[in-house]
Amino acid sequence: MKFIDGGVCAAKGFTAGGIHCGIRKNKTKRDLALILSEAKASAAAVYTTNLVKGAPLAVTKMHLMDGKAQAVICNSGNANTCNANGIEVAKEMARLTAETLGISEEDVVVASTGVIGQPLDITPIKNGLPALKESLGADNGSDAAEGIMTTDTVKKEVAVSFEIGGVKCKIGGIAKGSGMIHPNMATMLVFITSDVAIAPEMLQKALSTDIQSTFNMVSVDGDTSTNDMVCVLANGMAGNKEIIAEGEDFDTFMKALNTITVHLCRMIAGDGEGATKLLECRVTGADDEKTAKTVAKSVICSSLTKAAMFGADANWGRVLCAIGYSGAEVDVTKVDVSFESAKGIIPVCENGAGIEFSEDIAKEILLEKEIIINVGLNSGDYSSTAWGCDLTYEYVKINGDYRT
Amino acid sequence: MKFIDGGVCAAKGFTAGGIHCGIRKNKTKRDLALILSEAKASAAAVYTTNLVKGAPLAVTKMHLMDGKAQAVICNSGNANTCNANGIEVAKEMARLTAETLGISEEDVVVASTGVIGQPLDITPIKNGLPALKESLGADNGSDAAEGIMTTDTVKKEVAVSFEIGGVKCKIGGIAKGSGMIHPNMATMLVFITSDVAIAPEMLQKALSTDIQSTFNMVSVDGDTSTNDMVCVLANGMAGNKEIIAEGEDFDTFMKALNTITVHLCRMIAGDGEGATKLLECRVTGADDEKTAKTVAKSVICSSLTKAAMFGADANWGRVLCAIGYSGAEVDVTKVDVSFESAKGIIPVCENGAGIEFSEDIAKEILLEKEIIINVGLNSGDYSSTAWGCDLTYEYVKINGDYRT
Repeated sequence: MKFIDGGVCAAKGFTAGGIHCGIRKNKTKRDLALILSEAKASAAAVYTTNLVKGAPLAVTKMHLMDGKAQAVICNSGNANTCNANGIEVAKEMARLTAETLGISEEDVVVASTGVIGQPLDITPIKNGLPALKESLGADNGSDAAEGIMTTDTVKKEVAVSFEIGGVKCKIGGIAKGSGMIHPNMATMLVFITSDVAIAPEMLQKALSTDIQSTFNMVSVDGDTSTNDMVCVLANGMAGNKEIIAEGEDFDTFMKALNTITVHLCRMIAGDGEGATKLLECRVTGADDEKTAKTVAKSVICSSLTKAAMFGADANWGRVLCAIGYSGAEVDVTKVDVSFESAKGIIPVCENGAGIEFSEDIAKEILLEKEIIINVGLNSGDYSSTAWGCDLTYEYVKINGDYRT
Repeated sequence: MKFIDGGVCAAKGFTAGGIHCGIRKNKTKRDLALILSEAKASAAAVYTTNLVKGAPLAVTKMHLMDGKAQAVICNSGNANTCNANGIEVAKEMARLTAETLGISEEDVVVASTGVIGQPLDITPIKNGLPALKESLGADNGSDAAEGIMTTDTVKKEVAVSFEIGGVKCKIGGIAKGSGMIHPNMATMLVFITSDVAIAPEMLQKALSTDIQSTFNMVSVDGDTSTNDMVCVLANGMAGNKEIIAEGEDFDTFMKALNTITVHLCRMIAGDGEGATKLLECRVTGADDEKTAKTVAKSVICSSLTKAAMFGADANWGRVLCAIGYSGAEVDVTKVDVSFESAKGIIPVCENGAGIEFSEDIAKEILLEKEIIINVGLNSGDYSSTAWGCDLTYEYVKINGDYRT
C-alpha cells in the first residue's frame, strides 16, 4: 500500500470541485463542494446517532436505499438542521444538483454542516451550481476538501493505492472535523471514493466494521453532532473482480479503507477546535475489546487530562481518574501509565500508584505536538486506540461566539 | 424555615476551625479543617463511584460502619489518592486527630482533596493538630470552609433553622467544589451538621435520597472525582423526639436538608473552575424522572453549550444537539427551549425548530450571572433541574498547569 496524491479524486473516474456560492459572508472561503463519479457507484454510509438529525441525512438515507450513488453535494456554513423546511431544502439541493449534472436525483448524496437552526437559503446554491459544475476536475479534490470546512484550520485529504488480485486500485477521502466531534456509531463528515468493484452490501459491511475502531474512537469535545455522516462511493473502474463476499480481496479492501480512515481520524483530532496537540490513548491488556475502548475513550474525553496536556503537565492522576469513572470494570491496582512522544517515553504510574520520574524529561516529552498516553491494564489481551486533542483557550474563544 | 449564619457551626454543639499547617506552600491559605460535635452524632455518608478512590474514603467508610461519628478532619492541597501508603496515612490522620481531641479513632471522619498521586506527608498535619484544636470555636465555621478549598474562589457555607414537633432545630453545611465535578451517586466534599435527633439509618436514607436530585445533578467539567464524599453528622442536641421512621418529622428534616444541599449545589456550580456564570437547566414535561434528569444533565455537560453561554450567545441549536445525544428517548419535534435570567425570558425554539427572536434581548438576558435554560419536552409530567457553569479561558488556564 502506498500513500498517493489526489485525495477524493485519486480513484479512477472521480472529479471534484469547490466554490464560494455565498452561504458564508467571507468571500475567500469556499462553501459548496461537489464530488462526481463517471460511473454509478456502490455506495454505503453511516450516520449520527443523535436523535436530532440534520435534514440532509434523511434525504441521503432515502437516496442510498438502492446502494448506489454517483455524486455528493455538500455545503458548509449552515447545517440545515432544526428548520421547519429542512427536508424540502435538502431535496431541492439534490434535485438541482442532479439537473445540473444530468444524473438521477436518487443518485445524489446531500450533506450540510455549520450553524444549527438557521433556515438554509437555496438561492446561492442554485445560482452557484453551474459554476460548481464548471469547477469539476480530477485535480480539484482539495477545493472540495476546502468547501466542506467549518472551523477546520487545515484541509483533510488522503489517498492510497493498493492491489486486489493483481489489479491496481485506489481509495481516497476528505473530512471535515473540528468541533462537535464525539462520533457514536457514526462520525463527522467524511467522503471516501474508490475505484474498487465491490457490492453495495459488502461496502456497507466494510464501512460499518471499520468505523468502530476509527471514527467512533475520536473525540474533540464530547458533543455528538447532529449532521455526522461518513459516505463511501466505489465505482468499480479499477477493473478488479467485484468483491461480493468476505475473503482475501475484502480483507485487502478493509485494510486500505482503514488506512484512509485512521489517517483522517488523526487529522480530525489533531485539528480539533483550538487544539495545539494530537492526543492518542493506547490501551493494552484489557479483558475484552469493550473495556479497552471504554477506557481509551474516557481518557481522551477528560477535560482535565486535555487541559493538562495543553499545559504539558504530566498530571497522570487525571488519567487514572478518567479510567476510574469510565464505567469499565478495571482492576485499578494493576494499571500502568506512561507518556510518549517523538522525544521519548516516560513511565509515571505503576500498579495504580505514582512512581518517581523526572519532571524535566516529562515536560520535554509533553511539549511535542503528538502525545501518546499509554495505559497498560495488565489483565487480558485486548487493546484499543482513541484520538483526541488538548483543551485550549482557543476552543473557548471559537465557541464563545461561533454564530457571529 | 429561615436562613441563618454559622454554616457548619450553626447547629447546637458543633465547633469548627481551620489553619495553615504547611501542606500548601502558600502560607496565607488554610489547608487543614476540623469539625467537632460535643456529643457523638448519627452519621451518614455517600461516596464517589469512581473505581479509583481516595484512601481517606476507605478509612471513613470503615469508621462509619456503626453509624456514629464525632469529628471530621480534612486537608486540602493533596488528595492522598493513588499512593502506596495512602491508607496508612489516612489512618494515622484519624488516630492523631482522635488523640488530640480525646475521642475514639473510630469516630473520626477523614477526608483529603487536592493533587492525585503525590504522597501525603503526615508531618505538617501532626505538627498542626494542637493549633487546630486551639482554633476550634462556634464562630469559626468559615475557617473550616476555607480549609477545604482547592481552586474554589469563594467559601461555600449555608445554614437554616426549622422546627420539628415544636422544637427548634438547625442544619448547616460547607462544601468544596470547583473542578473534577461530575458527581455520580455521590459528590464533591460536603460536610453537613445538624442538631436534629435522628437514627443513623434514617439519616442515611435522607441523604441517599436527597443527593439524587441535588449533588448528582451538578457538573462542572464531566470528570467524576476520586475523592467525592458528602457526610452528615446529626448530634440530637436540639432535643426533638428522635426520628426513627418516615413520617412528618422525617419529611421536615428532608426539606431542611434539601434546602442546604440545593444551596451548596448552586454555589459549587456557580464557582466551577473558571466560571463566570451559574447555569441551571430546568427540564419539564418528561415521560419519567430518568428522562428529565438525563436531558438536564446532558445540556449542562455540553462543552459547546457551556462555551456559548460564556459568550452570551443564544446558540440554542447546541441545546437541541445535547438533548439529541443524551441517550434519553425524546420526541425532538416537540421540544421547546427558552433562555431566562433576572432580565427576563426569551423563547428561541418551538417544536424542535427555531423561531424568530431578538438577538439584542437574548444577549441582554444572557449577559447576566445566573442563566436558566428551560427545556419543555411537552410529553409527560416529570421534571428535573441540573446545575453547571460556563466554559471559559480561565478553566483552561487553571487546569493547564494545576500542579505547579
